[in-house]
Amino acid sequence: MDSQPELAPRSADTGDISPEEFRRFGHEVVEWIAEYMAGVGELPVLAPVRPGEVAARLPASPPGEPEGFDEILRDFRDIIVPGTTHWNHPSFFAYFAITGAGPGILGEMLAAALNNNAMLWRTGPAQTELEERTLDWLRQLVGLPEGFRGTIQDTASISTLVAVAAAREAAGLGVREEGMSGLPRLRLYCSEETHSSIEKAGITLGIGRTGTRKIPTDAEFRMDPAALAGAIAEDRAAGIVPFCVVATVGTTSTSSIDPVPAIADICEREGLWLHVDAAYGGSAAVVPELRGVLDGAARADSIVINPHKWLFVPIDCSTLYLRRPEVVRRAFSLTPEYLVTPEGESVTNLMDYGPALGKRFRALKLWMTLRRFGAEGMAARVREHVRLARLFAGWVDGEPGWERMAPVPMSLVVFRHRPAGLGDADTDAHNERLMAAVNATGETLLSHTRLHGRTALRLAVGNLRTTEEHVAHAWELLRRAATES
Amino acid sequence: MDSQPELAPRSADTGDISPEEFRRFGHEVVEWIAEYMAGVGELPVLAPVRPGEVAARLPASPPGEPEGFDEILRDFRDIIVPGTTHWNHPSFFAYFAITGAGPGILGEMLAAALNNNAMLWRTGPAQTELEERTLDWLRQLVGLPEGFRGTIQDTASISTLVAVAAAREAAGLGVREEGMSGLPRLRLYCSEETHSSIEKAGITLGIGRTGTRKIPTDAEFRMDPAALAGAIAEDRAAGIVPFCVVATVGTTSTSSIDPVPAIADICEREGLWLHVDAAYGGSAAVVPELRGVLDGAARADSIVINPHKWLFVPIDCSTLYLRRPEVVRRAFSLTPEYLVTPEGESVTNLMDYGPALGKRFRALKLWMTLRRFGAEGMAARVREHVRLARLFAGWVDGEPGWERMAPVPMSLVVFRHRPAGLGDADTDAHNERLMAAVNATGETLLSHTRLHGRTALRLAVGNLRTTEEHVAHAWELLRRAATES
Repeated sequence: MDSQPELAPRSADTGDISPEEFRRFGHEVVEWIAEYMAGVGELPVLAPVRPGEVAARLPASPPGEPEGFDEILRDFRDIIVPGTTHWNHPSFFAYFAITGAGPGILGEMLAAALNNNAMLWRTGPAQTELEERTLDWLRQLVGLPEGFRGTIQDTASISTLVAVAAAREAAGLGVREEGMSGLPRLRLYCSEETHSSIEKAGITLGIGRTGTRKIPTDAEFRMDPAALAGAIAEDRAAGIVPFCVVATVGTTSTSSIDPVPAIADICEREGLWLHVDAAYGGSAAVVPELRGVLDGAARADSIVINPHKWLFVPIDCSTLYLRRPEVVRRAFSLTPEYLVTPEGESVTNLMDYGPALGKRFRALKLWMTLRRFGAEGMAARVREHVRLARLFAGWVDGEPGWERMAPVPMSLVVFRHRPAGLGDADTDAHNERLMAAVNATGETLLSHTRLHGRTALRLAVGNLRTTEEHVAHAWELLRRAATES
Repeated sequence: MDSQPELAPRSADTGDISPEEFRRFGHEVVEWIAEYMAGVGELPVLAPVRPGEVAARLPASPPGEPEGFDEILRDFRDIIVPGTTHWNHPSFFAYFAITGAGPGILGEMLAAALNNNAMLWRTGPAQTELEERTLDWLRQLVGLPEGFRGTIQDTASISTLVAVAAAREAAGLGVREEGMSGLPRLRLYCSEETHSSIEKAGITLGIGRTGTRKIPTDAEFRMDPAALAGAIAEDRAAGIVPFCVVATVGTTSTSSIDPVPAIADICEREGLWLHVDAAYGGSAAVVPELRGVLDGAARADSIVINPHKWLFVPIDCSTLYLRRPEVVRRAFSLTPEYLVTPEGESVTNLMDYGPALGKRFRALKLWMTLRRFGAEGMAARVREHVRLARLFAGWVDGEPGWERMAPVPMSLVVFRHRPAGLGDADTDAHNERLMAAVNATGETLLSHTRLHGRTALRLAVGNLRTTEEHVAHAWELLRRAATES
């Protein structure tokens, strides 16, 4: 029956690592991490390497013989760490600042050791039930009502992809079975300030870039609900089928908050799926006095919040909350015979809630982080980040020649330097030089965006180690660079 | 300009974990992991819990105050571990057996500590370049030619989704811009034995379930190329647009290997994208005398191999090799202003190669594992797993009343007990009882599938700790259960 290649004789050297060796190097790694946690603020934030410099130090071919872990760790310290941009640095203010805090690192250590794949309840009962319970905790922490069921995806891009796929399924066009050929054009709505992952989900799902319509925003970068309603009416009149609206709580450029209640009104009237992208901003709702950022979100069909963004959990951990989880199951669930289990439909099988079958134990780090911080500890840090951002915004507002370019509803400040007498294009170039100069110091890291066509600098507070001193130092570097460039 | 909620006074208690606390509990966790590695074989393989039992032991709400890590680790040991199905157990023979080996656990510890998001080269230069280099190492280890560029995704499901999306883009129908409405029906081909993730990718991408056509297989569960050619011709005649064929190297039910060279001939002739799903089977190619499993794969457009399946890397780590990576970029790349960097197009930005923007440092664990094992150490273990599977197959073949139901080209044996005088349906029920009885012992874990409509048992060897003794014990339990049930 078989035609099998001959096997070489059995080797005695299996290359396996012994528990003793793991113990030795595990303790060494823990010491390194503790020192890294204490000293990351002394390292350059942005990796001071040129493209290709790291690769040039790595052998072109893998070793034939096993190497010792001493050597591997030496190369990690000598080659990898100096080529790393330190997202854990207290002066990392670019994009959205994050933290891989200790409780989550310990959680990742244990998750890697268990190496559990909870695709089915049966293959990870504790993994499945801990995910459900921990996500219900987070639901309570951000003030969402009962009935929303959470599931963990790797990134907000995938959470959004799942949400929009569910919206497409909910439209009742039979896409799961028959696909999209021959259907009328579908339309997804979001604002001009929406994250690129929404448009990317549209591309992946076969809606196409033109299937995503970007609604204009107001002076504070929030979606204009009247323009949304108008676009929907216009599309319907043209035979296009609206099916989903994405509202953002905390846009990437300015952290603006779309008027979710007004958008929810429109979605209810029009029968459209409402997805709320609160990947960054949703975390602010753990602070009781900031809970208003999620106003209206309880009326959404789906909401994404990323604990790996602003709740101090190491990436990746994106949570997707669903009001009707059965729609996602209808969109995605497929159970071949080899995945049928005796428990049948009586249990949650996590593989049913997204495009990936395999399921890493991501709930552990979230659970450990929420417990170690507690609701109040978590709120205290997020609150402090918002305070630091407002402090910085105040400095910008008070200094001649500088201007703030957007409100600061959370922990992101968007601003620029505007020397007298410079035209628009020159002001843009000046701010780009300024940012490059500041980032090149290795002492702080900002990023940029464009608002109304003009270059704007972004300072995002989100790292646990960030103190007033770090924010003040960034401001000092900016002011110095402004006078020098 | 702003209307901001009032913030409560600043809290002194930040809830942060200190390096000293991390050190203390980090060392405790390392000790726990070392003991777990040494003792996992003594635990029940399948978690002996009923649905809801773990959840019932977890509080319904999160703690308000921070909790100590002593307490958190106690609950991990007392509640989570007993509710875990131990994929690391040497007698885990279900699905495809895997290992989270020591080098990869150490890699995950360090990756979680760095908490780097390498979405852009700039935000993770070492992360980006290590991924490229390590994937080139793996390319060499499995004998793929130069020119294939690797990228890491979380799971094979997502790797396949990316590959099929690229195939859709390569068809030149303008799907990225205009979507799929109004296009003729597209068709994706795979065999009846192909993994469900292919059909799921089709659903996600808007091709629909009916857009995936399953080609019949031969007596050894391999796709029939003549049937494939016929289906393509039939579809073209009906106005359907073929665009992609998925061939499998190591199917889930039997580890059968589709005739890739013959399928590649058809794809070249018909101008179709060839994706090779070698998520499990590709790893066998690290053994020089088994390299033939990838015959013809060098002619594919894309190939997926999962180091988290059979190369001892903790999940998640799926590698996708692309002959024309620029097609994936064309399908997925979107660069909003806030992600533009000074390096521009001169560098690889990992966000361009899939649906997710955020990018965890998964290359580290793969690099550490490949170095610690070395090419020869890796080959020795995979070779040994194949030897153990053949040994077990020989026992089945030699025992009256038992029958093997498929060839054993790799490390999976598919078989059943067939008592004299039992009809087909009774034989199925008998084997289901037999599997349930064996799995209930907690001493070994098998899974099942259906072949030609009949229940078949699967024993998959893939864990580093598995020895001849564990395989013999599974056989002993099976024989005992067969006489008792």
